[in-house]
Amino acid sequence: MSEVRELSDAEKTFLEPYLPPRAADGRKEAATHNVREQHGETAETVQTDGGGLPFVTLTYASSLDSMISLAPGIRTTLSGPETKSMTHFLRMHHDAILIGVGTAIPDNPGLNSRYLGATLDSQPRPVVVDPKMRWDVDSSKLAQLAQEGQGKAPWLIHTRHELGEEALRGWGGRRVFLPSEAAPTGQTSESAKCETIAWSTILKTLKRDGVDSVMVEGGATVISTLLSMPELVNTVIVTIAPTWLGQGGVTVSPAPKVQAGERVNAAKLQGTVWRQFGADAVLCGRLQV
Amino acid sequence: MSEVRELSDAEKTFLEPYLPPRAADGRKEAATHNVREQHGETAETVQTDGGGLPFVTLTYASSLDSMISLAPGIRTTLSGPETKSMTHFLRMHHDAILIGVGTAIPDNPGLNSRYLGATLDSQPRPVVVDPKMRWDVDSSKLAQLAQEGQGKAPWLIHTRHELGEEALRGWGGRRVFLPSEAAPTGQTSESAKCETIAWSTILKTLKRDGVDSVMVEGGATVISTLLSMPELVNTVIVTIAPTWLGQGGVTVSPAPKVQAGERVNAAKLQGTVWRQFGADAVLCGRLQV
Repeated sequence: MSEVRELSDAEKTFLEPYLPPRAADGRKEAATHNVREQHGETAETVQTDGGGLPFVTLTYASSLDSMISLAPGIRTTLSGPETKSMTHFLRMHHDAILIGVGTAIPDNPGLNSRYLGATLDSQPRPVVVDPKMRWDVDSSKLAQLAQEGQGKAPWLIHTRHELGEEALRGWGGRRVFLPSEAAPTGQTSESAKCETIAWSTILKTLKRDGVDSVMVEGGATVISTLLSMPELVNTVIVTIAPTWLGQGGVTVSPAPKVQAGERVNAAKLQGTVWRQFGADAVLCGRLQV
Repeated sequence: MSEVRELSDAEKTFLEPYLPPRAADGRKEAATHNVREQHGETAETVQTDGGGLPFVTLTYASSLDSMISLAPGIRTTLSGPETKSMTHFLRMHHDAILIGVGTAIPDNPGLNSRYLGATLDSQPRPVVVDPKMRWDVDSSKLAQLAQEGQGKAPWLIHTRHELGEEALRGWGGRRVFLPSEAAPTGQTSESAKCETIAWSTILKTLKRDGVDSVMVEGGATVISTLLSMPELVNTVIVTIAPTWLGQGGVTVSPAPKVQAGERVNAAKLQGTVWRQFGADAVLCGRLQV
């Protein structure tokens, strides 16, 4: 496990404009149910979009050929120690870290922050979107970290006819059941079948439950889908490692976009800044609506 | 046509370590047949690799999803004015610019340098690799620029049983015929069929004819192939634009690499430096052998 170092002042200054608003002073409120009561209208006012949505940061690390992994289910190390430290810094500045089940199963990630000074209170809430209940949370690293007090207990998002919640084993986690959405016409792939909860529903539910900022960390399907939803995403932070994984890897790329019968760019960033972190680069920007 | 501006001192300092050796003082010798006589052994000594190969720079501009175009045959603008100026700066510092016929036909590019102070002598020699003689050079922009004295006359690389050369219409260009290589087993795609001249043969031929430095500009097949040949490539300069073109575009990605039965990274850069140019980033590095 590589050491997580503190970011330099210049690195923090670089990232700061892209952090969730209330994180700008370096302090984050606990992501508990009482956040809304504490902040109420103020929090809403500070939110960029209001409208019952949390601040959403998309983050991922890719190769130069836009891959996050050599093959499905394989965990591929891409970022160097500098950008790894940045990830832990960013995690500490968000109320929740969200991943899809397709990442949770093969990676079995910790999703906590090992950044200097991180306390259980400042840990992000792990959220795993697992519509069909495929993931065995009990034997996961998330469960272990929660029981050891090194991370918050995870929340799992499932679909079910009867909506509601269930506690997870009494150690603080829970299952949240949301309505399933009809799969878009013509989409019959495995990933399309699994992504059957509207993203706006997921995000609004998190906001309702006190999560004011969500860092979406993967996998490729989740990131690629949300890149086409600028109305839901506030900031994108991409780490690019100077390597090519080669054809056949797991690629981040949004669905093609057609306007007036012609293909156009599927997504664009504005207000972009780039900075070298070790051998990698980090790009921050905002999706053009 | 956007204006080409002069690079700042900081930008030049950033690029300088990655330029061909003799370009480091800002002056480039004319890419003519007499370069070898003028420089002979000295030029060979300065070359990083010697061995009858020119200095090779791979350059391309891609989206964040590693695409250079929205669809085959479509010219897609990716780089902003800052990185466009850099391209013209780099062109002036190479003896030749090489592209594949798959780029020459749809793009009909000029391949000359519009950088401040570029003279006909300092223009790079356009080289088009066109094994099957598919390209109509006579109606090309390259032919027009050569006849107007705004660029050097192009050299075309073809395959034929009888090797040799032919002059192009008396305006200085020529066709060079090289031996074809057996296509790699199992490769039957159109691009594989077209790429039937060994890259080492092409590059050695250019070096023999006085070309000490080659900037390879595309297309995706040429770049992807050469990324797997670190023994032939000295420097890689990638421009990344903060946009995603979306699935189905034309992707730069080398062939997968397998070691001991497992997939490994297909290519890696070392000595990497990154710099923001406008909204884009430029990455310079050297391929790990």
